[in-house]
Amino acid sequence: MASLGDIGLAAAINILTAFAFLIAFAVLRIQPINDRVYFPKWYLKGLRSSPLQGGAFVSKFVNLDFRSYIRFLNWMPAALQMPEPELIDHAGLDSAVYLRIYLLGLKIFVPISLLAFSVMVPVNWTNNTLERSNVEYSNIDKLSISNIPTGSNRFWTHLAMAYLFTFWTCYILKREYQIVATMRLSFLASERRRPDQFTVLVRNVPPDPDESVSELVEHFFLVNHPEHYLTHQVVYDAKKLSSLVAKKKKKQNWLDYYELKHSRNQSIRPTKKTGFLGLCGSSVDAIDFYTAEIEKLSEEIELERDKVKKNPKSIMPAAFVSFRTRWGAAVCAQTQQTRNPTIWLTEGAPEPRDVYWDNMAIPYVSLSIRRLIIGVAFFFLTFFFMIPIAFVQSLANIEGIEKAAPFLKSFIEIKFIKSFIQGFLPGIALKIFLIFLPTILMIMSKFEGFISLSGLERRSATRYYIFQFINVFLGSIITGTAFQQLDKFIHQSANEIPKTIGVSIPMKATFFITYIMVDGWAGCAGEILRLKPLIFYHLKNFFLVKTEKDREEAMDPGTIGFNTGEPQIQLYFLLGLVYAVITPFLLPYIIVFFGLAYVVYRHQIINVYNQEYESAAAFWPDIHGRIIFALVISQLLLMGLLSTKEAANSTPLLIILPVLTIWFHLFCKGRYEPAFVQHPLQEAMMKDTLERAREPQLNYKEFLQNAYIHPVFKSDEDSDSDVMSQEFEDEPMLVQTKRQSRKNTPLPSKHSSSL
Amino acid sequence: MASLGDIGLAAAINILTAFAFLIAFAVLRIQPINDRVYFPKWYLKGLRSSPLQGGAFVSKFVNLDFRSYIRFLNWMPAALQMPEPELIDHAGLDSAVYLRIYLLGLKIFVPISLLAFSVMVPVNWTNNTLERSNVEYSNIDKLSISNIPTGSNRFWTHLAMAYLFTFWTCYILKREYQIVATMRLSFLASERRRPDQFTVLVRNVPPDPDESVSELVEHFFLVNHPEHYLTHQVVYDAKKLSSLVAKKKKKQNWLDYYELKHSRNQSIRPTKKTGFLGLCGSSVDAIDFYTAEIEKLSEEIELERDKVKKNPKSIMPAAFVSFRTRWGAAVCAQTQQTRNPTIWLTEGAPEPRDVYWDNMAIPYVSLSIRRLIIGVAFFFLTFFFMIPIAFVQSLANIEGIEKAAPFLKSFIEIKFIKSFIQGFLPGIALKIFLIFLPTILMIMSKFEGFISLSGLERRSATRYYIFQFINVFLGSIITGTAFQQLDKFIHQSANEIPKTIGVSIPMKATFFITYIMVDGWAGCAGEILRLKPLIFYHLKNFFLVKTEKDREEAMDPGTIGFNTGEPQIQLYFLLGLVYAVITPFLLPYIIVFFGLAYVVYRHQIINVYNQEYESAAAFWPDIHGRIIFALVISQLLLMGLLSTKEAANSTPLLIILPVLTIWFHLFCKGRYEPAFVQHPLQEAMMKDTLERAREPQLNYKEFLQNAYIHPVFKSDEDSDSDVMSQEFEDEPMLVQTKRQSRKNTPLPSKHSSSL
Repeated sequence: MASLGDIGLAAAINILTAFAFLIAFAVLRIQPINDRVYFPKWYLKGLRSSPLQGGAFVSKFVNLDFRSYIRFLNWMPAALQMPEPELIDHAGLDSAVYLRIYLLGLKIFVPISLLAFSVMVPVNWTNNTLERSNVEYSNIDKLSISNIPTGSNRFWTHLAMAYLFTFWTCYILKREYQIVATMRLSFLASERRRPDQFTVLVRNVPPDPDESVSELVEHFFLVNHPEHYLTHQVVYDAKKLSSLVAKKKKKQNWLDYYELKHSRNQSIRPTKKTGFLGLCGSSVDAIDFYTAEIEKLSEEIELERDKVKKNPKSIMPAAFVSFRTRWGAAVCAQTQQTRNPTIWLTEGAPEPRDVYWDNMAIPYVSLSIRRLIIGVAFFFLTFFFMIPIAFVQSLANIEGIEKAAPFLKSFIEIKFIKSFIQGFLPGIALKIFLIFLPTILMIMSKFEGFISLSGLERRSATRYYIFQFINVFLGSIITGTAFQQLDKFIHQSANEIPKTIGVSIPMKATFFITYIMVDGWAGCAGEILRLKPLIFYHLKNFFLVKTEKDREEAMDPGTIGFNTGEPQIQLYFLLGLVYAVITPFLLPYIIVFFGLAYVVYRHQIINVYNQEYESAAAFWPDIHGRIIFALVISQLLLMGLLSTKEAANSTPLLIILPVLTIWFHLFCKGRYEPAFVQHPLQEAMMKDTLERAREPQLNYKEFLQNAYIHPVFKSDEDSDSDVMSQEFEDEPMLVQTKRQSRKNTPLPSKHSSSL
Repeated sequence: MASLGDIGLAAAINILTAFAFLIAFAVLRIQPINDRVYFPKWYLKGLRSSPLQGGAFVSKFVNLDFRSYIRFLNWMPAALQMPEPELIDHAGLDSAVYLRIYLLGLKIFVPISLLAFSVMVPVNWTNNTLERSNVEYSNIDKLSISNIPTGSNRFWTHLAMAYLFTFWTCYILKREYQIVATMRLSFLASERRRPDQFTVLVRNVPPDPDESVSELVEHFFLVNHPEHYLTHQVVYDAKKLSSLVAKKKKKQNWLDYYELKHSRNQSIRPTKKTGFLGLCGSSVDAIDFYTAEIEKLSEEIELERDKVKKNPKSIMPAAFVSFRTRWGAAVCAQTQQTRNPTIWLTEGAPEPRDVYWDNMAIPYVSLSIRRLIIGVAFFFLTFFFMIPIAFVQSLANIEGIEKAAPFLKSFIEIKFIKSFIQGFLPGIALKIFLIFLPTILMIMSKFEGFISLSGLERRSATRYYIFQFINVFLGSIITGTAFQQLDKFIHQSANEIPKTIGVSIPMKATFFITYIMVDGWAGCAGEILRLKPLIFYHLKNFFLVKTEKDREEAMDPGTIGFNTGEPQIQLYFLLGLVYAVITPFLLPYIIVFFGLAYVVYRHQIINVYNQEYESAAAFWPDIHGRIIFALVISQLLLMGLLSTKEAANSTPLLIILPVLTIWFHLFCKGRYEPAFVQHPLQEAMMKDTLERAREPQLNYKEFLQNAYIHPVFKSDEDSDSDVMSQEFEDEPMLVQTKRQSRKNTPLPSKHSSSL
């Protein structure tokens, strides 16, 4: 077990690494050449233009203003200065509430740490159980519960602390749930007219021999919502069309590239080979070739578009139905339409950007079967993922490669290469799997049939958390694969399981401290450095960027990445709550993580990330639920641990805690969750009335007519930017942030990008 | 273990008992004097009048028509003859669907038995494991899975059968769910205008300093449902008023009695003593005394009524809000009204008869705490109920009684009395507890805050089923109290638990066969005999009945008793499914139970029971869920049993079954359950449109004005009969059954009461 010195060393190394990253970031971000990597959000908002367009040649690429190097940590206070309402305006409610998760971590763990250090550390320290025992121990263990003698009365302190920590966590959680629910409702209320307020997504429209889907939808809603129905838009099956449009876009880029090349060097008309990857085949004039190709594709697209619009088979049994009032839409979304609850399913439409178009047409039975399949698949993924990896590992050895590719033999036999392969290969299969895991989980969620991107990300996050809980948390505590654990748990009695895990927990504290420093501290610093986007941007810029539009795309601002980021935070909540009573020494590391991550992500959200959709913090019930889960797990494990310590008097009193915690969860669920699912009628009516009074002449039909059209039908233009621009037209309010970003990097602005 | 002969003897005894009951019933029911005991339903419907009013004196009491004695089993076909739609008209949908549970039992178990006997009995019988082993065995065990040698390939048969039985059960369950859902929806659609179709119950109206509850409700709904709101009725806290009215009713009965007495014997004015129980104190003229008392009470009632109506504090923060259309009510019931989901809670109003008035005013937080308290209390009740009973038993011995009441000593020391007390007392505490258990569970449900009688009964039934599952089913299999089991299970590993139970199951088959015969067969026959109501009716008639109204009340038709009856049926489903694969010999006993119970309860529903409310089969999701639970339990136990038999190949294949079954349950829940919870808008709109076309001039306000008034406000009359009569006025259709019951017992009618 590591001593305090060891931990100190590890901390020093990690702090240095983190600092190195932060300094690298501070230097790199003020170079104009990196401006698009570190401030893409402002470019996308149109508030910042490329520094490459003006000024001296060198200062286009390198920052020569030495004063700015001195103030290299200024971004931290800058990131903290933007007030929350402005942040919501600037980056959306999702991002603002996402930051509150880190704050929540601080609010929970700072008081808990103070209490733990002032009460429990003395209680633990003033024993000499470990000194008298023969086991190896470190100073950290002297601070932990391991140092209390078996059957001691001092365990009452831990019991009392467990109660206190639980009550404090629940209090903070309830307060936060209340605040976020209020934020969500005010956000929805303060927003301008948006199409999703008036629109309901109807799925599983039953087939009808006499009427088309469109007629059927119109008649159904005219009959059943006569006073509120306004219009509707059917959903087309446009997968083929999308791929054609994407193909055309690619060709268009090549055409732009060759035209650019030709314009720079008028003497030579660029040529290309028509064969595989442009490497072989006959040589043709590139510009003519692509112009012809694009014309051909345009025709195809026109044909396909007509076909899709005219062929009734390409209309999916789903529609976006718009109502005259928000009240009508809220009513329709919340009620059951027909006797058969599996047809005419209505729900509030997601934001147009948030729609996941491919899953519109899945019938109820199929949806139900898909859920079963994915449930089973996820079980196997979680518990048996090591089996195929072990299989790949067994194949990927020197002999296997030599056998499969004998011509590589002489190359492989070089000593350096050989040792590299032997050392590196076994781990690589696991590493690749872990890198692809979020993608695998996302594919699973897509298969399951969610109809909004936010829904997909939420479900993937839940799955990722479960995977991490089983394979990282439990896997580290009781070493062994998840399958071995499962086998162990099945063969153990219900009261043995918390004991088995509980006993190992104090011993793993140092491991988790190191984990927090590597994954949390250095990870955060790495996140702000954006090494991968930085390298990719410059590579693309150097090798691939042909047009200004390509450079726009090369920016890759990314998003928060809810489906991977949130489960990681939750792991820290879990560690903090589990170790709060057992080894309070771990808590400061978690607090540093939450603090650092809060600053880093606030900066990133202000300057970098470009959120794809706005779900108005619909994810908060998940956050709340997972912290409750962590709390219950921590209570059960403490119970297991104390029962092995023969603290017989105090253990039964701990059973009350999980009961109370679960009750608290149910209470909060009933009290706050509806705000995240349904739109209250009172709010809808209020906005309707106000709007009618203000703009009595408004033509809603025009406003709603084309809001929910599949991106490919909107225009031949790039669909993404199209959605974006349409978004901006709809919401001039959202863009008018009070902050004015500097137009060019080296000029210092007021807050956000001060140097 | 009992041999086939033993079982045969037990069967013979029980069949004889059941037959004795049935014959006693056949004889007793055709005596005119018992007419009100065996045909109260017809009296309550007003289709039958008392046989005491005409004819020869003897034939008023005893049936002298000997031909009717010959056809003493005629009630059975008669009970079966009434077609289902007529039964629904006659006794309501609840009763008709309740009978379908028995039919469901037959539909599931008859084919399963046939298959089990033709396939599994030969497979089990043609082994000689038991013969070669040293354990005692009977012929029944030779028919069971115990006779298969360990590790035999014959277990594949059992596996295949488990799959077949599961699929068959699920198929029948799905079909039945579909049928019942359709029945419910057509019942709701075919019904005439009822107040609950237009009315929504609003609870947790927030307090307002400026407006009364009534004004607040009116304003809120005028604003938020402007086109649909019609009127509303506030709910008064009328507990004190109810008790005053009940007191007055009692005095009124005494007055009637004395007036009757006086009218029979004009010479003496009846007197009564004013002291304790009329045994001491000064003697006064009874008629004058009661007239004065009633006058005083009437004044008090008037005062209290005025007070309740005028004092704003006696208005509860709840109201019944009525809408112009069914559509408006359906919308309001299904939607969330305000930001705060714990105020302005709306739900479809229960039928006026079904309302449980005392629970209207419980705020959300209190409701949530009550649920927690009851959850914990029920846990202790289930697992620790033996502790107080054992304590009472330890007190209730001879020495204890002698100590507590020394004056009884000489009496107790009589040998006969002593042995009686010693033999009887220990059991009596348990027996009393079991008799009061449904009442205890009902009190728990009331405390939990349900607002309809049907909801109370459903929750009590669920609790009773859990109690029976743990204490009767598991308690009989692994002998020991529930607490000992719990302790055992906590200390056993997850895969050991099904093994422990599974192994004991084949050995308990004979016990359960006896249980079925005693509790099921004889119980059914006892139910139809109605011994308790018979005796009580005659006792009341002889000692207490003073007026005709008293005789009406002495009838005590009773109800189906969903909260006790349904869990009992579910126990048979559980036994049948568990033993289907293990000891198929048990199945015929269950089939006989279901058949007999079906006939008996059909007869009782037609002739006896008077349902208090109509929930339109809202209980079916519970029925379905519990059968699924039984199915999963049977699969887990079979898995446990097979794994001890070293049928290693087949056991893992069984894991698929519970997964599929639970998925099937979720599928059915999504597909059919909404029909039992919500009112689809299409249906509501259809009925509204039809009604508007037919009766455009209808004054809904008048119709709905007083529908939901607390019974005590309706009139000074007996509140129950008042609700009844009002019910009849509203729904003349419901009374007009096509059947005409004979007016007097000995005259044979067509079906229902043929002799």
